[in-house]
Amino acid sequence: MSAEQPARFSHRLRVRYGECDPQGIVFNANYMLYVDVVFTELWREAIGPWRDMVQRGLDVVVAEANLRFLTPARFDDELDLTARIAGLGQTSITTRIEMMRAQQTLVSASVRHVCVATGAPGAGGLPESVAKTELPDWIRDGLARFVVPDP
Amino acid sequence: MSAEQPARFSHRLRVRYGECDPQGIVFNANYMLYVDVVFTELWREAIGPWRDMVQRGLDVVVAEANLRFLTPARFDDELDLTARIAGLGQTSITTRIEMMRAQQTLVSASVRHVCVATGAPGAGGLPESVAKTELPDWIRDGLARFVVPDP
Amino acid sequence: MSAEQPARFSHRLRVRYGECDPQGIVFNANYMLYVDVVFTELWREAIGPWRDMVQRGLDVVVAEANLRFLTPARFDDELDLTARIAGLGQTSITTRIEMMRAQQTLVSASVRHVCVATGAPGAGGLPESVAKTELPDWIRDGLARFVVPDP
Amino acid sequence: MSAEQPARFSHRLRVRYGECDPQGIVFNANYMLYVDVVFTELWREAIGPWRDMVQRGLDVVVAEANLRFLTPARFDDELDLTARIAGLGQTSITTRIEMMRAQQTLVSASVRHVCVATGAPGAGGLPESVAKTELPDWIRDGLARFVVPDP
Repeated sequence: MSAEQPARFSHRLRVRYGECDPQGIVFNANYMLYVDVVFTELWREAIGPWRDMVQRGLDVVVAEANLRFLTPARFDDELDLTARIAGLGQTSITTRIEMMRAQQTLVSASVRHVCVATGAPGAGGLPESVAKTELPDWIRDGLARFVVPDP
Repeated sequence: MSAEQPARFSHRLRVRYGECDPQGIVFNANYMLYVDVVFTELWREAIGPWRDMVQRGLDVVVAEANLRFLTPARFDDELDLTARIAGLGQTSITTRIEMMRAQQTLVSASVRHVCVATGAPGAGGLPESVAKTELPDWIRDGLARFVVPDP
Repeated sequence: MSAEQPARFSHRLRVRYGECDPQGIVFNANYMLYVDVVFTELWREAIGPWRDMVQRGLDVVVAEANLRFLTPARFDDELDLTARIAGLGQTSITTRIEMMRAQQTLVSASVRHVCVATGAPGAGGLPESVAKTELPDWIRDGLARFVVPDP
Repeated sequence: MSAEQPARFSHRLRVRYGECDPQGIVFNANYMLYVDVVFTELWREAIGPWRDMVQRGLDVVVAEANLRFLTPARFDDELDLTARIAGLGQTSITTRIEMMRAQQTLVSASVRHVCVATGAPGAGGLPESVAKTELPDWIRDGLARFVVPDP
């Protein structure tokens, strides 16, 4: 795998009517929903279905999100959500996401996830306080080919 | 409590911008969200906080919902959601809800919930198949004063 | 087109994490969101993009919705939303929708839309009171091949 | 008004079931919804109902949002959303928001809105490109008492 080019992951979705607000554009909170969708799909490609991780007693939760809204997306637009991993820390994953329509970036987002131990599978829900935990190798290795550091 | 008049429960909420669609009115799915809000508040008044029930290994899930949309609610409207229990079955609760602006009914809904056993507290999530279970007396008694059968 | 078989429209989507509730299943209001998605996609296939209709001064709004929740859909499930037009009235469209996972129906919905005149294109939003209007031929003809009356 | 103390605006809301995810906590995108709610309520207190502004041919849209998620909010929690204006630019408004449960900050957000001209009232929706416009005095004056610069 050593010679493999780092990959920029891309996922296409279509803006739903119910995601748009009275201005006829995507309501700002829903871009966070899109962030979650593309991260889940990147995860599927890199590692596997999200619930496999949860079954293993781990979860990855959003610790920080920064979004810049450049141009609004409208109902029925097809958006290409591209994502790359900008950095892997001891316990955290930093992801840069661009939401594009044709070749234009509409929203630019940066999200930091942290890995937490949720305890035994089936324990249900998030305990009152969850402990950050080191990213295990199977996550680190899976994400490796999507790591593209900031220029 | 025997001489008490049956009560029609009412809860007020304000329409949020993000709940409205490009027509400037509440997106239809969000009325179902309002149904859930008023049912939760009726439950609090009648019985107590929802999570107390969940802690006791029970849950109440929607089995059927019928909504008639008469007049749209708009951003920033204050709505009065009124609810009455139209019937209590062995395992089910039928609730009629009117969503009013001033004295006008905008949406009329009927919802049938069923009581399910979710197993031991903390077991997490809904098992693959949940079994309907009889409404226990503490639910039946709590809801009693909100029972107003259909005319 | 006379010999054409009536068509059952189908659209696949994947359940998003943010659409699921603390029970780990799709929150009931979000099935209404799915109803809207499949109706929009059926419209695209039958007639064209939704916004073309809006540009022509017409809109189609939900007047009534009935949903039966049989089995919950879970995060990451792929659902097949099938739809057929059960009836075309003077001003209304009745649609039956089945939400399937594999071969199992999870949610069964019936929705009645009515056609309304929204006035000149660009007039913005829904007037205080919108008038029902007859379904024009281009809508009626477009939907024709998806008409499958109830047995 | 010169001797008036700057005010920290606060708005209370209760977490809805449908806003929570399979972890039993508020889904991250919904905190953005809360940001919008508290900003709308601050606006009402400072200036008046949002739609009055829209009627005047102006709108205020989110250009940038930064959120730090410290501790999750759960279903049925009562949250106090506090907001202060950290800065007023020529065309922009920077707001700091803390989402508190009891005395604990759960989420800390910073949002930059920009003022845009939407054209004549009733023109409908956002034009393809909206022009930033200077904050008029009636907005600037209304917000003045909520301005609390960063320390």
